[in-house]
Amino acid sequence: MKAFAVNCTLKQGGEASSTDVLLDQISEELGRHGVSLERVRVADLDVKPGVTADEGDGDAWPEVRRSVLDAELFVLATPIWMGHPCSNAQRVLERLDAFISDTDDRGQMRTADRVAMVAVVGNEDGAHHVGAELFQGLSDVGFTLAAGAMTYWVGEAMASTDYKDLDAAPEKTAQTTATMVANAVHLAEALAARPYPEL
Amino acid sequence: MKAFAVNCTLKQGGEASSTDVLLDQISEELGRHGVSLERVRVADLDVKPGVTADEGDGDAWPEVRRSVLDAELFVLATPIWMGHPCSNAQRVLERLDAFISDTDDRGQMRTADRVAMVAVVGNEDGAHHVGAELFQGLSDVGFTLAAGAMTYWVGEAMASTDYKDLDAAPEKTAQTTATMVANAVHLAEALAARPYPEL
Amino acid sequence: MKAFAVNCTLKQGGEASSTDVLLDQISEELGRHGVSLERVRVADLDVKPGVTADEGDGDAWPEVRRSVLDAELFVLATPIWMGHPCSNAQRVLERLDAFISDTDDRGQMRTADRVAMVAVVGNEDGAHHVGAELFQGLSDVGFTLAAGAMTYWVGEAMASTDYKDLDAAPEKTAQTTATMVANAVHLAEALAARPYPEL
Amino acid sequence: MKAFAVNCTLKQGGEASSTDVLLDQISEELGRHGVSLERVRVADLDVKPGVTADEGDGDAWPEVRRSVLDAELFVLATPIWMGHPCSNAQRVLERLDAFISDTDDRGQMRTADRVAMVAVVGNEDGAHHVGAELFQGLSDVGFTLAAGAMTYWVGEAMASTDYKDLDAAPEKTAQTTATMVANAVHLAEALAARPYPEL
Repeated sequence: MKAFAVNCTLKQGGEASSTDVLLDQISEELGRHGVSLERVRVADLDVKPGVTADEGDGDAWPEVRRSVLDAELFVLATPIWMGHPCSNAQRVLERLDAFISDTDDRGQMRTADRVAMVAVVGNEDGAHHVGAELFQGLSDVGFTLAAGAMTYWVGEAMASTDYKDLDAAPEKTAQTTATMVANAVHLAEALAARPYPEL
Repeated sequence: MKAFAVNCTLKQGGEASSTDVLLDQISEELGRHGVSLERVRVADLDVKPGVTADEGDGDAWPEVRRSVLDAELFVLATPIWMGHPCSNAQRVLERLDAFISDTDDRGQMRTADRVAMVAVVGNEDGAHHVGAELFQGLSDVGFTLAAGAMTYWVGEAMASTDYKDLDAAPEKTAQTTATMVANAVHLAEALAARPYPEL
Repeated sequence: MKAFAVNCTLKQGGEASSTDVLLDQISEELGRHGVSLERVRVADLDVKPGVTADEGDGDAWPEVRRSVLDAELFVLATPIWMGHPCSNAQRVLERLDAFISDTDDRGQMRTADRVAMVAVVGNEDGAHHVGAELFQGLSDVGFTLAAGAMTYWVGEAMASTDYKDLDAAPEKTAQTTATMVANAVHLAEALAARPYPEL
Repeated sequence: MKAFAVNCTLKQGGEASSTDVLLDQISEELGRHGVSLERVRVADLDVKPGVTADEGDGDAWPEVRRSVLDAELFVLATPIWMGHPCSNAQRVLERLDAFISDTDDRGQMRTADRVAMVAVVGNEDGAHHVGAELFQGLSDVGFTLAAGAMTYWVGEAMASTDYKDLDAAPEKTAQTTATMVANAVHLAEALAARPYPEL
């Protein structure tokens, strides 16, 4: 079983990302279940604006799309900016939108039988709303969401500490991550054994 | 297999509710899969404000809560007011909140292995956002969401037609409802056969 | 100049409310500008469900509505539950909805020339989203929003400290409250001197 | 008095944009009040990802930022994708974020005394939520919002008509646009005559 994560940080590859730190912790939990996590950063790729599966010359999305389809588990990971999913996360949703009309011979979207998780990090406030936006987008484009499909960390109101500067994952976030991963892996196995029906 | 729906319309029992019409259509689809749907209207019950499982004397929630737990499928159905889930839907979420600390001997919330669906109706605009709010609330309190976990109808911007006054379900809504139900029933069966693990 | 606040806490009058503590601080800031703040708790009133200006026998809304119209400044104050405005806040929005078709001889809604502020408190996460929901609702029903129209406090992710148990307002929240009040009072004065035009 | 609009369509300049059609109508209404509207398309500019006022070499934002500050009225116009503000609109909010720490000698953000409007277009559903997200972002970064600060159009649920293909603005949208503009122009004049105070 494979997992694939898209890190939507605004920071390019050289720069440390709090979202990556949360993904490290998700990766470790996935490892306990024998699942490996591959990941990419949108900021390092030329994902073109648009709502089709392939926006042409130089578009990095088709390869990201293949990685999404190659894995049974998908992690959409984003920082919070202005209380919202960051622009790179919204761009990923816009590109995922093309799955709505991309169905297989069951009449299901090509994403069917894949389980999604959401990871959200910010200095302060916004995780539940970001989760809401991403859950709705992911469900719309055919992903399944296990019980407790989000893990997150934010600091106190108007604080400026970064998650990457904490010494360790706070206990509650660590526990939420572990539960999220255990349930998502279980559900992906259940769907692998019993895929969605023909519509 | 049983399904239980909470209709969050602001209208009391005697009054026709567009949300009920959408629930009728969900009920019919569930019937095709051999699943019966029981339903209640929050507006007809004295569901007390609060965030515990039982708010005491006269609180109708404990019985609603039992019905939620007695069914493998849960439908949260709400009209849109001001672009948001209506106040009765938010009250239901507040009461469901108590499941977060109500875990079974697996360490899972008591709602685990139950699959939720969302049904949203309005004169105009707001369905996706209402879906987002409800998905996040339902995932937080332990429900699982199948691919395409929402069905909805709204009219054109600033329009005033009621769903209950349409001659029939518009084709796209009907198809979305059918897909939602097929996938949710499938997922509930998969989870019945293979419940979430001990945490 | 007068201000009127609706506290949407789920707690009834006898019980201490963090939202009230934030309202105390807003009241103090209003006092520095010579504005007095009257306030009510929805939880202590029988505000009936519905979307009209008067839902009949025993409905407490018509009096709340009069207080809203009697003041130049309106404060909508709510705790966060499940990351959303609490059910009482949504009920207030549903009742305010009636202003959309309640216009004066300028063709403006009766709320025109009134400035709204938003106050949000939670144990953790959700303030910006609650602000977003309330801003949109308040603008839809005719209120004007000054620069920086929200103040808030939330704790770290998944924390359980109550705002009412802090020794004092954290400096950043205090400063945000002071700015919000200064700008709102200014804008209400500007609109009193120069009311919105005939449409 | 000047107005400046940012069109956040995903489409580049050569392609017709429904958002532009709504901006044409806003422009016409502004003209009735003697206000001219300048506009840019984010999709045609290299607005770099980030949250500072200038992200360096080749960043188109500093010039957009100057146009925002040169005008008394700001229009943030966006299509709806996945029920959310599109990624270009979120990028604009991320760049506006820098105003939070960019204050003048009054201690006010440099955006103070500027009035913002929101214009939202989609095939179906999502306008109120997009408005909510943008209102909150705009208020956070110092803009003032007049009564009825949004105009919008969306079609029926799951419909695919584009606003640009309608013969004319539907009457309700036209009226909402006219009211939005009249109130915003009035408020900008009121703030020009009586700017926000020193904090």
